[in-house]
Amino acid sequence: MMMNAVEAQLAAERVMARCDALAAISESPDQLTRVYLSPQHLRANAQVGEWMAQAGMRVWQDEVGNICGRYDGASAGAPALLLGSHLDTVRNAGRYDGMLGVLTAIETVQWLHQQRRRLPLAVEIVGFGDEEGTRFGITLLGSRGIAGSWPESWTTHPDGNGITVAQAMADVGLDAEAIPRAARDLNDIVAYLELHIEQGPCLEQEGLALGVVTAINGARRLSCRFSGEAGHAGTVPMAHRKDALAAAAEWMVFIEATTREQDPQLVATVGTLSCAPGAVNVIPGEVTLSLDVRGPQDLPLERLLSSLLTQGEAIALRRGLRFEAEEYYRISATACDSDLQQALSSAVETVQGRTLALPSGAGHDAIAIAERWPVGMLFVRNERGISHHPAEAVMTEDVALAVRAYLHAVCQLAQRGAP
Amino acid sequence: MMMNAVEAQLAAERVMARCDALAAISESPDQLTRVYLSPQHLRANAQVGEWMAQAGMRVWQDEVGNICGRYDGASAGAPALLLGSHLDTVRNAGRYDGMLGVLTAIETVQWLHQQRRRLPLAVEIVGFGDEEGTRFGITLLGSRGIAGSWPESWTTHPDGNGITVAQAMADVGLDAEAIPRAARDLNDIVAYLELHIEQGPCLEQEGLALGVVTAINGARRLSCRFSGEAGHAGTVPMAHRKDALAAAAEWMVFIEATTREQDPQLVATVGTLSCAPGAVNVIPGEVTLSLDVRGPQDLPLERLLSSLLTQGEAIALRRGLRFEAEEYYRISATACDSDLQQALSSAVETVQGRTLALPSGAGHDAIAIAERWPVGMLFVRNERGISHHPAEAVMTEDVALAVRAYLHAVCQLAQRGAP
Repeated sequence: MMMNAVEAQLAAERVMARCDALAAISESPDQLTRVYLSPQHLRANAQVGEWMAQAGMRVWQDEVGNICGRYDGASAGAPALLLGSHLDTVRNAGRYDGMLGVLTAIETVQWLHQQRRRLPLAVEIVGFGDEEGTRFGITLLGSRGIAGSWPESWTTHPDGNGITVAQAMADVGLDAEAIPRAARDLNDIVAYLELHIEQGPCLEQEGLALGVVTAINGARRLSCRFSGEAGHAGTVPMAHRKDALAAAAEWMVFIEATTREQDPQLVATVGTLSCAPGAVNVIPGEVTLSLDVRGPQDLPLERLLSSLLTQGEAIALRRGLRFEAEEYYRISATACDSDLQQALSSAVETVQGRTLALPSGAGHDAIAIAERWPVGMLFVRNERGISHHPAEAVMTEDVALAVRAYLHAVCQLAQRGAP
Repeated sequence: MMMNAVEAQLAAERVMARCDALAAISESPDQLTRVYLSPQHLRANAQVGEWMAQAGMRVWQDEVGNICGRYDGASAGAPALLLGSHLDTVRNAGRYDGMLGVLTAIETVQWLHQQRRRLPLAVEIVGFGDEEGTRFGITLLGSRGIAGSWPESWTTHPDGNGITVAQAMADVGLDAEAIPRAARDLNDIVAYLELHIEQGPCLEQEGLALGVVTAINGARRLSCRFSGEAGHAGTVPMAHRKDALAAAAEWMVFIEATTREQDPQLVATVGTLSCAPGAVNVIPGEVTLSLDVRGPQDLPLERLLSSLLTQGEAIALRRGLRFEAEEYYRISATACDSDLQQALSSAVETVQGRTLALPSGAGHDAIAIAERWPVGMLFVRNERGISHHPAEAVMTEDVALAVRAYLHAVCQLAQRGAP
């Protein structure tokens, strides 16, 4: 059961055109920003729902604002293979992050519908209302709705204008009391697949359009501080300084070298740094810097983090400074299901000859779904890995390959009935 | 001709009380800020002029707003030994930086006056109106007035409120047209001495109250930039990054190590650093940082700076980044006159048994004066080297020693008639 090259090309062109059409649904005309529970969110849902219906799906918006469609299996009450991604964006976003996964999924169903094929499993598609967390600062609200894992406190969480989630829901005709009803029954769904742009350079560097995700990286974020002694840049001899920035520099060199050494799948980033007092002619007395470490397995990640923090302490001690680090964000690594990986890999090999297994450095809806169901992810090459930026780009021919591989995997998994 | 211990103690107490009195002349009641051509500047001048007059001096305010006093020598038209320092402050300043040099100088004359002594040379004292550059961002306006080295452009230079130097002068009854008349005739002045707090930790670490300055450090300030490539902190493998902050860290480690290695009198400081985009989960694409290097001789300073910049380039090249550095401030090293150093050292040895020769890391009025006349500087220990801060502190017993040594040196030099 394969889509031919002409069909795939037409499907890919439709996906690209629909990405463009969705990009026009934005809160500002010059740049793409579409946040949870905004008028643009509902307009995007309506548009995507229309495309789902054209693909022969029954369509509904669920209690947390996800747009959902179901294409029944051979028997009407069959459990579903769930395909999805998100329709919300960061501010000044690209047009593929999220949307590409929803629109390629619709093409797989559209093709089944045109072929009048019914599979042993139903195929459902969901366009999640919030993955990025742009509006409320809390993330994965759409997929956590379906997984039934919304913390109660979320409904009173305010956006930047002091509007709570519950109020924002009411503003668009949703009822916060009904949120628990968005949760899907465990037995209704067999597995979850998500297609997404890579948001990284690995596929491009391998010269491949598609790859299969092994795991979504776990992450730790820390706020760190070296405290030394400010002083006059002209009068304190080098040997008598307690320069917080010099200590931080030594530590950053260690972070980079150690992370590279330990495991090529681990990454560590210092993305922000500020010095106080922060004047050209004053020795920095205090440096605050962020540390973000990620990896596909929690244990090596913890080991790395521990060795970095130990070294931070050691550097501070040797220099007569203080070092502190506070972890303020932690997410465990999410392994992709090995059967789903295998099905996706086999589909990718079929359409592009070989496959690449790679971790996902970014977070995805699959993290929330994985708490309840097995998940698998297919990555599509994007130019230079640029994402969360208007320059985000994918190639139509890559999307054509992606639709073919996606359909192939869906058919294979649905034939088997379960992963 | 020596001040006895009781006299010195009384003089020191008076100096401390007068520092307190001047600290009350501030634009804000909670913290000491006194800037050039402000009402507080004129009030401080008036107060200091009164103390000069009490010490038997003829007093005038010159054309750039310096307060000046002359204690004639044995013959009325004798050339002068000029003593001085500044009366302006940084914002939220300490009370000794500048003022201590003016008030101790007055004590030397006061003692001569009480003893009814006239020296072969006249003794003149100047309280410079601007050394710090707090108001206009240009520095040494007072001493450059006396040296006759004001650039013409300075009169149109604006302060933070758009008021030019010329307008500010007019506002306090000075005439910018008359600035050249502030310049002193080369032959009127034999030499310049300045007493100042060290603003560094060297005397404290040696357990000494007083030391003699060998040179005022030359300085270079540069704005530097590493430009790499921003990227997603989760998705770009370590080996594929062009992390501008990692490059800057490597460079900062080199700066610290190389400067320490080359010469204990050289110092290099990175006092400010900012990353762009500057988010926890984004690899820094661009880092801007300042570099401040100083040393008592220009040649070793240039050699150090050159090796630092070469290494900046090399690090950028190896990592596939760009490195730029722009020098925006340069001041040559100012050597202190060796005869004056000798006279001051001998005076210091007389009062405290031994002396310490040390460079000045900070800039001083002596820099401008040294373009026309030989200069010498005497440093007084200040607690922990803290300066430009309300916690700036000196000990009364150190000031007593300082007044004795200062008087000793003045008498010795004035007896000789010339350095």
